[in-house]
Amino acid sequence: MAKGITSRESDYPQWYNDIVLKADLAENSPVRGCMVIKPYGFTIWEKMQRDLDDRFKETGHVNAYFPLFIPKSYLSKEADHVEGFAKECAVVTHYRLKNSEDGKGVVVDPDAALEEELIVRPTSETVIWSTYKNWIQSYRDLPLLVNQWANVVRWEMRTRLFLRTAEFLWQEGHTAHATEAEAQEETLNILEVYAAFAQDVLAVPVLKGRKSASERFAGAVETYCIEALMQDGKALQAGTTHFLGQNFAKAFDVKFANKDGKEEYVWGTSWGVSTRLMGALIMAHADDQGLVLPPKLAPIQVVIIPIYRSEEQYDEICTVGREIATKLKSHGISVKLDDRDTERPGWKFSEYELKGVPIRLAIGPRDLENKKVELARRDTGVKELVDLEGIDQTVEGLLEEIQKNIYQKALDFRKANTHEADSYDEFREILESKGGFILAHWDRSAETEEKIKNETKATIRCIPMEEDMKEGKCMVTGKPSAGRVIFAKAY
Amino acid sequence: MAKGITSRESDYPQWYNDIVLKADLAENSPVRGCMVIKPYGFTIWEKMQRDLDDRFKETGHVNAYFPLFIPKSYLSKEADHVEGFAKECAVVTHYRLKNSEDGKGVVVDPDAALEEELIVRPTSETVIWSTYKNWIQSYRDLPLLVNQWANVVRWEMRTRLFLRTAEFLWQEGHTAHATEAEAQEETLNILEVYAAFAQDVLAVPVLKGRKSASERFAGAVETYCIEALMQDGKALQAGTTHFLGQNFAKAFDVKFANKDGKEEYVWGTSWGVSTRLMGALIMAHADDQGLVLPPKLAPIQVVIIPIYRSEEQYDEICTVGREIATKLKSHGISVKLDDRDTERPGWKFSEYELKGVPIRLAIGPRDLENKKVELARRDTGVKELVDLEGIDQTVEGLLEEIQKNIYQKALDFRKANTHEADSYDEFREILESKGGFILAHWDRSAETEEKIKNETKATIRCIPMEEDMKEGKCMVTGKPSAGRVIFAKAY
Repeated sequence: MAKGITSRESDYPQWYNDIVLKADLAENSPVRGCMVIKPYGFTIWEKMQRDLDDRFKETGHVNAYFPLFIPKSYLSKEADHVEGFAKECAVVTHYRLKNSEDGKGVVVDPDAALEEELIVRPTSETVIWSTYKNWIQSYRDLPLLVNQWANVVRWEMRTRLFLRTAEFLWQEGHTAHATEAEAQEETLNILEVYAAFAQDVLAVPVLKGRKSASERFAGAVETYCIEALMQDGKALQAGTTHFLGQNFAKAFDVKFANKDGKEEYVWGTSWGVSTRLMGALIMAHADDQGLVLPPKLAPIQVVIIPIYRSEEQYDEICTVGREIATKLKSHGISVKLDDRDTERPGWKFSEYELKGVPIRLAIGPRDLENKKVELARRDTGVKELVDLEGIDQTVEGLLEEIQKNIYQKALDFRKANTHEADSYDEFREILESKGGFILAHWDRSAETEEKIKNETKATIRCIPMEEDMKEGKCMVTGKPSAGRVIFAKAY
Repeated sequence: MAKGITSRESDYPQWYNDIVLKADLAENSPVRGCMVIKPYGFTIWEKMQRDLDDRFKETGHVNAYFPLFIPKSYLSKEADHVEGFAKECAVVTHYRLKNSEDGKGVVVDPDAALEEELIVRPTSETVIWSTYKNWIQSYRDLPLLVNQWANVVRWEMRTRLFLRTAEFLWQEGHTAHATEAEAQEETLNILEVYAAFAQDVLAVPVLKGRKSASERFAGAVETYCIEALMQDGKALQAGTTHFLGQNFAKAFDVKFANKDGKEEYVWGTSWGVSTRLMGALIMAHADDQGLVLPPKLAPIQVVIIPIYRSEEQYDEICTVGREIATKLKSHGISVKLDDRDTERPGWKFSEYELKGVPIRLAIGPRDLENKKVELARRDTGVKELVDLEGIDQTVEGLLEEIQKNIYQKALDFRKANTHEADSYDEFREILESKGGFILAHWDRSAETEEKIKNETKATIRCIPMEEDMKEGKCMVTGKPSAGRVIFAKAY
């Protein structure tokens, strides 16, 4: 048990919390439900942002910024949207404070009540579509492919760092199209972008699929998602894309003149991923020693730790350490030489294990003599002596290998934890004993979905897209099913 | 007058607003005082962000993220801070809405009042120092060099796009140090970072200096600033850095054990620049034809416009245009070939002029024959025929030259609009007739400063740092002055 981290087996939620806190990723703030993202955690998030942002731009999207506040009445303009989002939210009612009469602080100035209350955005469809009304007149103005990186607030009662917080950071794409087909294509294209990012960067395999009606975004015609499996056998929704049809265009009266000069309502999509991905990253890869970071997201990819007894040894080893660091940096590898003499090597070893640094190089006096360094992989724990000569190629190749291995490990885990259930009894048995993704037949009724959820806490994570659907009979009602869907307990 | 832009001479504020709107930089949102930053404007802001962020990281800073909300009581903990920031701000009082009884919308749920109201951050010193209390125990934890990119809200009554908006985007650095000297050094180092960025990237010359006591940040011991001169002779504060002394450490009880094991209060700084820089960029360089962008911030550095009569010519010219574009892109230059056949060349010319694109290449059939293109510079308006051969080198060199020229032009303007005044009469005469920066002697009293401000609307922009201070006599009271300070009317 490293540095007081609870083991996964003894208490999984506590293990998660320990990792978040002790690896310096985030902590709770003085404001209920809001987190502070610490520098180490934020650097990982920045790397995610940069990679995703590049992918959005490569696919023709541009960034913009819309207001934090939404007039209360806007939320009511789309009938389903208001049900989903106008409930638990932060409401700004006043715009001024004044000194309290006892002189001991400030109080809300009752004379400064807003005529219409403002909601801190829980998502921005309403304010963005009200803006699009002015941006779109003709088919020449379409498509509009806009994204924003922003903070949003949903007043959650039970919060968990990264997974569910009142304020979180995300990106929200909002696109407008001339045709239904183009909007649908966008929804699926972005789903591919998300899935590729999850696989190539997070090293997390994801299932792509459609949500059932009950799990749809409030205001969407269709919601698609990527779903990942965590080490405790629970699913985590890692990103969603929504085909909005003409719902928001109608709510905000956004029309365009088509090539024939005829007015039509615009078709829309929206899509987002959030700091929740940090939770997925942790729960997919970390172990009882701490974080395990895929090299593409590691703030420090290689740490170099000198092992010495005398000051002379220290100087000699640090000189070599600096040479290695320079060489690695010239390959674009991020390296830290931890030459602090205030901490012992053993302490440093477990510190960088905890922080998930993919490769550790330890250099002792004997290694120097033999022109070797000890290389330890965080993902497998394997240590070996490698030649100082060509260390840059060794490390470069290994970082790629680690990235792949972490993904493969998660993929193997998912395969081992994906099961088919042919009866409701079998379903419940698998759910309780093993968890994981369960493929089972469902009659497509909301009633059956609700019954399963109430009785087992499992929800339909998605209706798969890729696999050939084979007909069958609902495990609960015996009614016809168009194909197996994926159930799991979920975060 | 391009595309309905008011000339600077006839109505400067209207000219500014026209540029912001017509160059697609930003617009007012449905929420009072909040703006929408449009994709073209946001791309410029992203370039500023990226460049500044690199500079912060090069100087050892890391990014983090702190909550949007601040408990009301936190604002009162630092005596001066509350006076400056606890007045005009957005106050969250409730966390839930419910359906209204008439069924026509949503209303604030009176049962969901917060125990303590939350303020949408106007700046984050309080919430950050309350967090630092837990991060800092020993001198080993120092310095803490943290920055965040965030949105902040100050409830301004009179707003202007980019210059003064209720919500704006900024970065705020918050650092903690073991010694007073180190904190002071940080304050000045960041001032240099800001000044270098303004000069090298914005192409805006700035004066560096200290603020007078009355213009200091609420809670700071000393505030430093960079001040730029706009084309209407008014000054614009483009960035500030604050030496906070131990004020916030004392307010939030942040102490550290020094090397001798003795407890001391931590020394602090904070510093920020905001989307206001977009206003500086516009007002420093734009003209009556539209924006003039320094190449380092231009979303499109080169636009290529085909001029043709027949379809055959169009195809031929576009082929060459694409070849040029590919060549330029391989040099890292951002290029747009506007091959739309729905707009005429003349319309395109003024469109890209309006958008401030530094270089325009126009290719006609005769140019093709002669292996030439027409190159027009946005900064000088000069057009010339240049060889197709080596166009990449020509453009690359010219972009550097334009960057320098735009800066030089702004510097010349500032020199021409900086005057010394030796009497209050002369001061008032210069202020009314020419405006600009006025160097004059001041007796360092708040009363005199206040009198000048009330009578002339000019404020002390800064007390210069670089120049040798020469003693003199206050232009108003005749009392001793340690040296001239810089006055101007300001945004």
